Amino acid sequence: MNKRNRHLRRLLAIGIASLVLAAFGGTAHAQDTAPMATQTAVDTTWVLVTGFLVFFMQCGFAMLETGLIRQTSAVNALLENFVDAGLTAIAFWAVGFGIAFGTSAGGLIGTSNFFLSDAVQFTGGNVIYAQTGTIDTLTFFFFQFAFAATASTITTGAMAERTDFIGDLIYSVIMGAVSYPIIVHWVWGGGWLAQQGFHDFAGSTVVHTVGGVTALVGAIMLGPRAIRWSKDKKWLPLPPAHNLGLATIGTMILWFGWYGFNPGSTLGTGNTGLIGLVVLNTTLGAGAAMLSCMFYQYGRSKKWDLIYTLNGSLAGLVAITAGCAFVAPWAALVIGLVAGVVVIIAADTVERFHIDDPVGAFAVHAACGIWGTVAIGLFGQPGLTFAPAGVDVATRTGLLLGGGFGLLGVQILGSAATIIFTAVFAFVMFGALKAVGLLHVSKKVDDITIFIDDYEHAQAITPDIRPPASLDGSAVSVKAPAIGD
Amino acid sequence: MNKRNRHLRRLLAIGIASLVLAAFGGTAHAQDTAPMATQTAVDTTWVLVTGFLVFFMQCGFAMLETGLIRQTSAVNALLENFVDAGLTAIAFWAVGFGIAFGTSAGGLIGTSNFFLSDAVQFTGGNVIYAQTGTIDTLTFFFFQFAFAATASTITTGAMAERTDFIGDLIYSVIMGAVSYPIIVHWVWGGGWLAQQGFHDFAGSTVVHTVGGVTALVGAIMLGPRAIRWSKDKKWLPLPPAHNLGLATIGTMILWFGWYGFNPGSTLGTGNTGLIGLVVLNTTLGAGAAMLSCMFYQYGRSKKWDLIYTLNGSLAGLVAITAGCAFVAPWAALVIGLVAGVVVIIAADTVERFHIDDPVGAFAVHAACGIWGTVAIGLFGQPGLTFAPAGVDVATRTGLLLGGGFGLLGVQILGSAATIIFTAVFAFVMFGALKAVGLLHVSKKVDDITIFIDDYEHAQAITPDIRPPASLDGSAVSVKAPAIGD
Amino acid sequence: MNKRNRHLRRLLAIGIASLVLAAFGGTAHAQDTAPMATQTAVDTTWVLVTGFLVFFMQCGFAMLETGLIRQTSAVNALLENFVDAGLTAIAFWAVGFGIAFGTSAGGLIGTSNFFLSDAVQFTGGNVIYAQTGTIDTLTFFFFQFAFAATASTITTGAMAERTDFIGDLIYSVIMGAVSYPIIVHWVWGGGWLAQQGFHDFAGSTVVHTVGGVTALVGAIMLGPRAIRWSKDKKWLPLPPAHNLGLATIGTMILWFGWYGFNPGSTLGTGNTGLIGLVVLNTTLGAGAAMLSCMFYQYGRSKKWDLIYTLNGSLAGLVAITAGCAFVAPWAALVIGLVAGVVVIIAADTVERFHIDDPVGAFAVHAACGIWGTVAIGLFGQPGLTFAPAGVDVATRTGLLLGGGFGLLGVQILGSAATIIFTAVFAFVMFGALKAVGLLHVSKKVDDITIFIDDYEHAQAITPDIRPPASLDGSAVSVKAPAIGD
Repeated sequence: MNKRNRHLRRLLAIGIASLVLAAFGGTAHAQDTAPMATQTAVDTTWVLVTGFLVFFMQCGFAMLETGLIRQTSAVNALLENFVDAGLTAIAFWAVGFGIAFGTSAGGLIGTSNFFLSDAVQFTGGNVIYAQTGTIDTLTFFFFQFAFAATASTITTGAMAERTDFIGDLIYSVIMGAVSYPIIVHWVWGGGWLAQQGFHDFAGSTVVHTVGGVTALVGAIMLGPRAIRWSKDKKWLPLPPAHNLGLATIGTMILWFGWYGFNPGSTLGTGNTGLIGLVVLNTTLGAGAAMLSCMFYQYGRSKKWDLIYTLNGSLAGLVAITAGCAFVAPWAALVIGLVAGVVVIIAADTVERFHIDDPVGAFAVHAACGIWGTVAIGLFGQPGLTFAPAGVDVATRTGLLLGGGFGLLGVQILGSAATIIFTAVFAFVMFGALKAVGLLHVSKKVDDITIFIDDYEHAQAITPDIRPPASLDGSAVSVKAPAIGD
Repeated sequence: MNKRNRHLRRLLAIGIASLVLAAFGGTAHAQDTAPMATQTAVDTTWVLVTGFLVFFMQCGFAMLETGLIRQTSAVNALLENFVDAGLTAIAFWAVGFGIAFGTSAGGLIGTSNFFLSDAVQFTGGNVIYAQTGTIDTLTFFFFQFAFAATASTITTGAMAERTDFIGDLIYSVIMGAVSYPIIVHWVWGGGWLAQQGFHDFAGSTVVHTVGGVTALVGAIMLGPRAIRWSKDKKWLPLPPAHNLGLATIGTMILWFGWYGFNPGSTLGTGNTGLIGLVVLNTTLGAGAAMLSCMFYQYGRSKKWDLIYTLNGSLAGLVAITAGCAFVAPWAALVIGLVAGVVVIIAADTVERFHIDDPVGAFAVHAACGIWGTVAIGLFGQPGLTFAPAGVDVATRTGLLLGGGFGLLGVQILGSAATIIFTAVFAFVMFGALKAVGLLHVSKKVDDITIFIDDYEHAQAITPDIRPPASLDGSAVSVKAPAIGD
Repeated sequence: MNKRNRHLRRLLAIGIASLVLAAFGGTAHAQDTAPMATQTAVDTTWVLVTGFLVFFMQCGFAMLETGLIRQTSAVNALLENFVDAGLTAIAFWAVGFGIAFGTSAGGLIGTSNFFLSDAVQFTGGNVIYAQTGTIDTLTFFFFQFAFAATASTITTGAMAERTDFIGDLIYSVIMGAVSYPIIVHWVWGGGWLAQQGFHDFAGSTVVHTVGGVTALVGAIMLGPRAIRWSKDKKWLPLPPAHNLGLATIGTMILWFGWYGFNPGSTLGTGNTGLIGLVVLNTTLGAGAAMLSCMFYQYGRSKKWDLIYTLNGSLAGLVAITAGCAFVAPWAALVIGLVAGVVVIIAADTVERFHIDDPVGAFAVHAACGIWGTVAIGLFGQPGLTFAPAGVDVATRTGLLLGGGFGLLGVQILGSAATIIFTAVFAFVMFGALKAVGLLHVSKKVDDITIFIDDYEHAQAITPDIRPPASLDGSAVSVKAPAIGD
């Protein structure tokens, strides 16, 4: 079509367009913001859309955890996972983002931009938006908020069915405001681990190890649910998952959301080839781990286990999160295959120590997060890894690709430092809650004279373990009678 | 990488590329459309992807409503919400879009572009696409269709469990074709409210107030379900929600979809800073309302109530929808905090008048939609608000920010006009349906000699309140026996 | 805002930006990849995001199938659908993509690029990404992988409740690696059907006919479930769907995902008008078919049938998939209206032949896929269709639009060739599995002395048809007792 035709088409459209522009005149703000470069527009679209996918992972975590636990605690799990989004939104906006990305105090902690004070400024009739890289800081904030919400959601799974609800609210705020942001600062906020050349592309360490280690400490300090011990003091197996449909939809939403988590961590579209590589590696890692976990478990039980396969896919996703931009596809496959076995061994180990992690949060997020982080030290691909200023990048590639121990060392260092800090922080945090009686829900719940959904929430996910609704026109009260009374 | 390397890479790719181009030659149409500017490509990507998210809200509404009502009406709710997508697609394409965005008759109603006749023209071998702003009109249509589908879906919630199915089909078509588009024309189609400088960025008034007010009128004209009155004429509480897992997944899908609803309403990416602000405000509004609603209800009942928290988040999302592009983040927080209480007060008021709104549609969508619209008159931020031609923009900012009563007045005017028009329209529409016996489902359903799922649909969401499937190899008929026979 | 202001804003942002750039230095790789053109960035964003939506359809298929079948086979359905994603990821990466898009051997099969060997090359410190059209080959791969995963997932529905799990794993790998990619090569990989000018924009033939025909052959070779025959050898109706909530959420996810499937098949944003047309046609096709199917069934049963309406929407989506870029909106409406009836007639026909297709996979995917493919021969719009080199495009438009029988002929040819090849391939594939005893699950399952979920998976989707979990503190084992024992 030549220019003349295009002109005609524009004339055709003008009737509608002028009306719409009149209505939406307020959105253009021609007077106070110059048109952004188109590249910024693309990068914003990319980062926001992938950020929305990451946010949707909140739904995935809620459904996975709820499906895997008992029906009698399902409302508790749904509410803990749901409310986490709102708590983190406020806490990360007010405090967390500043700690993560504010002006660094010695590479340890950020100290500015609380309440996003620097991100958008209103001065009289002007609005000034700060930028981070090629995108606006507000867009960058949203992507980071969605990540922050993930970390504390992971934790609820290991502490399911027995945490005091007020305790849950408090530790979720603290994680979103303080402990998670500190690690972000170290690795992604220009802190001391970033300066060492630590590699964690999308958060095997920053998000998953932090979430998984906090989860483990929480599970230990809570102690197991009463149902895990028989009357004659034998350790009992995990109770059956109450709804595998919910667990599966949750996992599939998580995998879907991971296509925001990893590829979106490019924070722009300046290198589209790398984005494609990240997507491929994420897919191979998840697929390989799903299969290795399923077959490994089949070898042991002679059954094709859905829960293991679900957790296997997550194990692969967690493991490849750190290295998806730093390894070749064959290495992503290997990292996934190993992760599918690591998750089983880790879950068995947790059980052996009589730690009650109802959904396997430590095994999936911490064990595989650590593996994925260290694996970069083995498989880091020349041309993809980077090095701090003054260090020859050839010495910072994977051990198995001839790079020596330099990268492996810094990966182990970063993982270990994160584990230690997070574990200590979690012990103090949960210890304080325990001291004031806000960690464990009432003993009545644990004795199963009343279920947590009734005790805390007066509701059940479905009424089908209750007497059916009366059919004669009289309604059943929302406040269902406590089971066991 | 220098230019030479890039050249080499292109040569490498040419083998694959040429094959693919051969296969997809039909999609390029080089002969009849010149390459769009890249900015149009970005804007199209943004508007369509956010539009897809808005469309997905149909699923959210379906699951939320279904989860909150009784199991015996679940199929009815699923089908009403699902069929709404198809009905609105046809009705909004044929009529609604033309009324909303066609040539204006006195600022009251659009009168052209029915069946999208102006949007795409086929003349011999040429295809001419009209544009609306920087995007094609077809893309703009889709985004607006997704919004239209939302409005009538909101209505089904308040009228759940007792509406005649044919009546539901008819009023859904009328809403998608006429009543909703008229308000769109007033506000977004260059109509009289747009000319007054009325602010409603993404539809607290246009979508939610319209949906919520129609819902209330429908609930009033239907009367309450028989189960709401006891035999001795006492008003009974709402029956328990039958599946809180579905209700939660529905709400989380809605929040996810709202990241299409509000940010996508920029209709382009010309101002990326503003998009970031919209995303932040949406997040803060939702989070704040979720928490204020949860804590307020905890103060009354001493229970952490999942349903209140779900509706609280929606209350915040509805309230911030109008102002997300016009207020500062702190104001978004305040708007959300208030919305979380408004929704409770509104729901209680509806109950006090013995109006049966099973999911709280009026409280969430109308009450908080009104609050959010009026709140711009209080918090409208200098630099973000706009004014009609000839009016000093300084007089059209929020009352609390020194802008006087100008903006507040026009916000109240727009909200009131919408409420009045919508209520009158709904009374006439539902009145006509009632007159011909198509509003309320058969009295048999209300007397609970048969459930609506059996009466209208011969199906149940799950068979678990029926005799279990035979285990001896004989199948159970799809047509389950009517319960109560 | 003038340039000076923009400069100031950049200075404001620099504190944050420099920290972030330090942390993400590894993602920029300025040394080995030049900045892509912004158009490539937009196209990559578009293709990846739509590809993510297509991937999410895996979740939709899993929930739809699981909801429509019996509860006693739900875990089997969930796992088959879920594991398909991982199997196809590996198989399509290793083999399938090369067969589909590798160097063509006579237009019949691709023979290169296995393991994506040409897509990304690591040479010392350099990384070279190949391109396909305007996007990187890795991005193109992901989009195609998501399509591949769809094809074999379709198949599981028709073979539900009775397929050996190892057999399922094997045939899924073969479909993802060989049979589906061969048809892709013919149509989208520059093969012999592409050279004939065969039109299939997004896969009514390539994906849905292949999936649906394979499904039918599988269902035939498996034979019906034992529950379909009564003791006196009467053919019994389909057992009731066990969870219509899951089925509805699955369908709505599928429709949502289809907005990736069809519009994303533009593989770029060079023609935004066409993208808008594809979106509109997809919407009209789905809506029209949903309604025609619902009303047609209402005419027969006097009930508003949710399952028919769900399958009706899918019928329309499948039918419009081939022609969404080649027909005018009114034709999309007609194609949808017809599809809603075709799906019913096809399902009835399958039943009449006593073929047991529990979810109607053949009717939805094959019958409507064939209809949609042939319909282009009737409605192909001048200006949208294309012709092979040397053929006058005017002779390759729809019969009803004056284009004669040329296009209709090639559409019938392409559909028939695909059906024949796929049917023969499926017979050989399933025949081989049957020969080695890996097609049908143990006879014990079919005799219903044990359910498939127990036999293969030792799990149930919910424990609610089992004795309830003990309330006295002793746990119930995961390995539930086999029902019927």
